[in-house]
Amino acid sequence: MTLARVAVERCDYLAGCTEEPGTITRPFASNLRGRYEGAVDGTLLLGSHLDSVRDAGKYDGPLGVMVALGAVQRLHDEHKRLPFAIEVLAFADEEGLRFSSTYLGSRALAGTFDPADLERADAEGITMAEAIRRFGGDPGRIEEDAWRGGPLVGYCEVHIEQGPELEARGLAVGVVSAIAGQNRCDLTFAGESGHAGTVAMERRRDALAAASEFVLAVEAAARVQPGLIATVGRLEVLPGAANVIPGRVELSLDVRHADDEVRTAEVRRILDRAGDIAERRNVFVAVEPVSENASVPCSPQLVSLLLRAAGDVGHEPIELPSGAGHDAVAMSELTDVGMLFVRCKKGISHNPAESVTVDDVDGAISSQRVR
Amino acid sequence: MTLARVAVERCDYLAGCTEEPGTITRPFASNLRGRYEGAVDGTLLLGSHLDSVRDAGKYDGPLGVMVALGAVQRLHDEHKRLPFAIEVLAFADEEGLRFSSTYLGSRALAGTFDPADLERADAEGITMAEAIRRFGGDPGRIEEDAWRGGPLVGYCEVHIEQGPELEARGLAVGVVSAIAGQNRCDLTFAGESGHAGTVAMERRRDALAAASEFVLAVEAAARVQPGLIATVGRLEVLPGAANVIPGRVELSLDVRHADDEVRTAEVRRILDRAGDIAERRNVFVAVEPVSENASVPCSPQLVSLLLRAAGDVGHEPIELPSGAGHDAVAMSELTDVGMLFVRCKKGISHNPAESVTVDDVDGAISSQRVR
Repeated sequence: MTLARVAVERCDYLAGCTEEPGTITRPFASNLRGRYEGAVDGTLLLGSHLDSVRDAGKYDGPLGVMVALGAVQRLHDEHKRLPFAIEVLAFADEEGLRFSSTYLGSRALAGTFDPADLERADAEGITMAEAIRRFGGDPGRIEEDAWRGGPLVGYCEVHIEQGPELEARGLAVGVVSAIAGQNRCDLTFAGESGHAGTVAMERRRDALAAASEFVLAVEAAARVQPGLIATVGRLEVLPGAANVIPGRVELSLDVRHADDEVRTAEVRRILDRAGDIAERRNVFVAVEPVSENASVPCSPQLVSLLLRAAGDVGHEPIELPSGAGHDAVAMSELTDVGMLFVRCKKGISHNPAESVTVDDVDGAISSQRVR
Repeated sequence: MTLARVAVERCDYLAGCTEEPGTITRPFASNLRGRYEGAVDGTLLLGSHLDSVRDAGKYDGPLGVMVALGAVQRLHDEHKRLPFAIEVLAFADEEGLRFSSTYLGSRALAGTFDPADLERADAEGITMAEAIRRFGGDPGRIEEDAWRGGPLVGYCEVHIEQGPELEARGLAVGVVSAIAGQNRCDLTFAGESGHAGTVAMERRRDALAAASEFVLAVEAAARVQPGLIATVGRLEVLPGAANVIPGRVELSLDVRHADDEVRTAEVRRILDRAGDIAERRNVFVAVEPVSENASVPCSPQLVSLLLRAAGDVGHEPIELPSGAGHDAVAMSELTDVGMLFVRCKKGISHNPAESVTVDDVDGAISSQRVR
């Protein structure tokens, strides 16, 4: 059996470990670490997370752990030692399903775990500290998880793409250039509601017409600026009746780009546009910032190594940004990071329909072969 | 006290008759009729309705009855008889608050009442037949309400405008040219949902972007075609999360115009536009017709009489269509109809803030003075 098939079958096997039988739902567990010693000094970290969202697929997280195991297995089978050690990491909680947290496991290892998170309670009121105690852990010793293993070569994570880019280009793998920074804000357009039959068009202050113009402006901005991703995902109309002119619209804006300066400038431009639209239409607009995260660039050295490795095993070496966050974000506080995306069917993720091919996984294992 | 002040104070007084103390809520009552005999033959009908929406204003409906009483009072005070009789009508149920019906009182008089409506039940399960019996009526005798009083001159209704047009033009009254016909339909745009961070703009099939383009196309169509009123009042986005590209949008379309041919052609054009947008964006669109009502033109003779009467008492005589339905729609099955709109503050209606001035009501009473 090939290492790639083993990796995929391990994902299948792990899919049976769930808190909700019939689905894959793994909310919270322990970090796991395995070490393959090297000839000289330093450690390369490889891994991803084993927890999942509710009703998840098999690969978001686990594939990165299994591919790392496959890469080490190959070294072992070939009786090879690298100049540095490899440590395979399986993080405990990236998705934050149980405690609405993020990157808990990787933050523990990176030494950035915030003890205040121990007071977070799950849906049943059980705190994280209590949950850790119940499965035999000691919440007071989390800081001992922080890396103390000496000099690091970097952290490298394999993950399914969770988007359709690689499939559309017919590529098995892609090297992540950066994890995009992100702005989220909520906008409210407030006009004047009125009878849909009695207010002439030229007297209207229709909040939905203003919001519609904004939605298209957001789309246009992202289509013009290379690499910009911008989405209005939520939009609510008030009062929302067929015979009433919309008086108020509340919507969400999500903007991402691998370059923080580009993102910041584009967000400003998009929000200026909202102001222009509102002024021209004699409606009000209010903007409430929700969150802002800087981008995490991948290490140029790791990117070029991964590109070369992918090319060496016959894959067209391409770079692409990651729009979603990953454990590599937390790990970037500790060391250089690199990521390799594996094509997934139709870009579907966070869904039982997540799917990868054994051949693509083989490509990932081979590309992990750092020389 | 002037007749106009009496009319307004009668509206105030009637506001105390409510099923929900503290608000105006008059769901269902009896038709009332009063007759002022004429010198020769025929009858002119004047009136409107006394029922209300929930938490209503004082004037939608009652003002038309009170102005009719004021006009008759003036004839009486001047010891005048017209060649024809005047009958003042106060209809029972125009808004349909209790039984989700429309024009019940005027349909009874017009002879178009549908006995099947007697089986409609209110929120407590009481049928209309039972409700009529409980306040001493006989549901079996509704058809006796149908007009049997001989030849008719026409039906004339005074109503607050329920829109901002007269106020914007600085006019007290306006003559209704026609009650607009109306199409309502529901549209669904179906694209593909996806992660807001990982699907590049050019691969998206965003249902909200398509719907936004449609909302603006609807607005543009109505701005270009004189007299066309078109509204998207309801719009729902699925799944509707900040980090998910909208996969599906459901929305309502309401199109009105006084000319049925114009309306029908414009609806076809707008729906064609929806198809074009969907095709270009590689999403699906489905259209479900909800209702279609033909327009009701006012009698040219009554329109010109009302215009002359308004001009004679110093008001600039203007015509405007009615976007909303009125008892005149039902009465048009029986006889010629005419309507006079009275300016209302900010166009607000179906709201406790409904407001008219005594001077404007005086203008309406004077314009009702048919010579």
